Amino acid sequence: MTFPVVGMVGGGQLARMTHEAGIPLGIKFKLLSDTPQDSAAQVVSEVVVGDYRDLDTLRAFARGCDVLTFDHEHVPTEHLRALEADGVPVRPGPEALVHAQDKGVMRAKLDAIGVPCPRHRIVSDPEDVARFAAEVSGRGADEGRWPDDGSGGFPVVLKTVRGGYDGKGVWVVRSSKEAEEPFRAGVPVLAEEKVDFARELAANIVRSPHGQAVAYPVVESIQVNGVCDTVIAPAPGLDPEQAAHAQELALRIGQELGVVGHLAVELFETTDGRILVNELAMRPHNSGHWTQDGAITSQFANHVRAVLDLPLGDPRPRARWTVMANVLGGDYPDMYSAYLHCMARDPQLKIHMYGKDVKPGRKVGHVNTYGDDLAEVRERAAHAAGYLRGTITE
Amino acid sequence: MTFPVVGMVGGGQLARMTHEAGIPLGIKFKLLSDTPQDSAAQVVSEVVVGDYRDLDTLRAFARGCDVLTFDHEHVPTEHLRALEADGVPVRPGPEALVHAQDKGVMRAKLDAIGVPCPRHRIVSDPEDVARFAAEVSGRGADEGRWPDDGSGGFPVVLKTVRGGYDGKGVWVVRSSKEAEEPFRAGVPVLAEEKVDFARELAANIVRSPHGQAVAYPVVESIQVNGVCDTVIAPAPGLDPEQAAHAQELALRIGQELGVVGHLAVELFETTDGRILVNELAMRPHNSGHWTQDGAITSQFANHVRAVLDLPLGDPRPRARWTVMANVLGGDYPDMYSAYLHCMARDPQLKIHMYGKDVKPGRKVGHVNTYGDDLAEVRERAAHAAGYLRGTITE
Repeated sequence: MTFPVVGMVGGGQLARMTHEAGIPLGIKFKLLSDTPQDSAAQVVSEVVVGDYRDLDTLRAFARGCDVLTFDHEHVPTEHLRALEADGVPVRPGPEALVHAQDKGVMRAKLDAIGVPCPRHRIVSDPEDVARFAAEVSGRGADEGRWPDDGSGGFPVVLKTVRGGYDGKGVWVVRSSKEAEEPFRAGVPVLAEEKVDFARELAANIVRSPHGQAVAYPVVESIQVNGVCDTVIAPAPGLDPEQAAHAQELALRIGQELGVVGHLAVELFETTDGRILVNELAMRPHNSGHWTQDGAITSQFANHVRAVLDLPLGDPRPRARWTVMANVLGGDYPDMYSAYLHCMARDPQLKIHMYGKDVKPGRKVGHVNTYGDDLAEVRERAAHAAGYLRGTITE
Repeated sequence: MTFPVVGMVGGGQLARMTHEAGIPLGIKFKLLSDTPQDSAAQVVSEVVVGDYRDLDTLRAFARGCDVLTFDHEHVPTEHLRALEADGVPVRPGPEALVHAQDKGVMRAKLDAIGVPCPRHRIVSDPEDVARFAAEVSGRGADEGRWPDDGSGGFPVVLKTVRGGYDGKGVWVVRSSKEAEEPFRAGVPVLAEEKVDFARELAANIVRSPHGQAVAYPVVESIQVNGVCDTVIAPAPGLDPEQAAHAQELALRIGQELGVVGHLAVELFETTDGRILVNELAMRPHNSGHWTQDGAITSQFANHVRAVLDLPLGDPRPRARWTVMANVLGGDYPDMYSAYLHCMARDPQLKIHMYGKDVKPGRKVGHVNTYGDDLAEVRERAAHAAGYLRGTITE
């Protein structure tokens, strides 16, 4: 058989679950992992331990792979260009992936293609943040001193253009004084208006090199302390036209940016009913974990199919409601007895553990529940996640 | 975390799919495989290559495993007893597993607990086969010469008591002359009446050490040339009382034999409406592959949960009908383009490939389809399996 080999860079849980999805597809999987203990390295047969920031390591890893794809966005763009120049299929390619790597590039591109975003611009220092706040508030720079009292466009969201995730690299500042910290890393800083949003949504699509694309139902994503806590599929009460609009937006972004593989478009639904793009991720994404048990084809299986340019699988849901809740580490390092309890309590619960050591606040797994009654489905997911973390003890 | 390590003996597709099911459970998996190319060895991180017939190899493999379980029934019973004496949890244990290893022991036990089986006995030579045929026909040995013309209980089914699978080690003979071959291996031979069955069913259950058990819906299993071709879940038109009776039978066998893990009870539904036990298998089984996409909890996940004495998952179906069709190798060794075609034709198709080289007639994968319309669900599965094999070309 001439079944191809997928090389995945990064040994986190996304690689772990992509490997899991690749097994039934008969796809051989090769992993470049930071350590032999990484989440995916525990379950993949062919693991290369090495540094994804080193081009020679990447080149050696790519030999024997039919295609390269990624668990994270941190591989330097210039290395991806070098690999492409070597003739290695890199999916998504560097010209697409840079939009998920660099928030400045992403915002510029989305502006250029007319995709609605929060107002934003690159800022140079804390004083410039205050100028941006004034601009956003509708008061120009000529209206006097920069308002630091929250009346003039503050709070403002500041993001380093590269390297952030899960709330890291993101600050909400209420004054130019509070805006000092983000500039300390020496990385360009993007300022964005703090959007008055009703909730967060995600429109996830998968796109293949020959241009086939599938759109998953738009989901609601609930964040706690900047970390995804719960995802509800589909987003409850979302107007069908608005849902279709969000899917079309994601499909258009995928096409305009030349994305191959899974694209997660994180969205704000504003209190006045607009849809704005918050973030992009070009890999399987936390907002798509529900698809493992709730969709005909999971995001992981479709990502594998896309990077190999295989026909994509049906993205439609299998249940009326599916809820995903992340399992964060609590104070107690041994989750096994809690895990056993959750299985006994709810025989329909779908648990997904990542094989990671428990540290407080660290994502170590997630649970999926599905059914017809949203309140009950949510309660089951929340209970299991809370019990595994140790915040619920009954 | 103190998540346990499951050691699986045998590197076939059942181990491959058990590993796949263990990944979301966070269970570490160790494999004893004949070769590094075996189906499961291609996808498991920790593989020991060695001979399962060698006790020292088994003992070395068992170190570092919290429990041992099996891809096949071929590990010598005395080795399993030695491992148990060493303190290794062996699941299923040798006193249960011997009933799946030795058809003579199995029949004697099922007789003892009153489970209906085809009439049978151990036979010593071809003449004894003819005597058995006469007994089965209701004509005693005193009624004259043994009838070799099919009128006196022939055809008879002969099985070597150990080592058979997928039609190997099984003969249907029409005369004492035809009965010579089975005796050549020097293994005891079991004779069974050839049951006049309407169809074959399978009742699959999973049982854990503390005695919890779950029963999957009874399925219909369609064999072609002694090899499983199609499984339909649930068995169409099966009387609900008959289905419950078959599930109870399987649960009782599991309990009486002390089975831990998955137990497949292959059944005959006779033309006069009786249910007889054909074979037992104490591992995930081909008749349960439909559960991967058609049940809330797959047989593989429940097997892992059972051998670890974790609470079992819900065995109920997720769809009205699920159909599994085995993919056998055809004449053409490269299946990849056919695989691509099948994905394009049916985006809801669930393909499960085993990573095996294609040989004519070899099981190299299976497909699952599900939906509300049985005829359509069957057609989709049959088409994909036939196209992959090369027997359908449109």
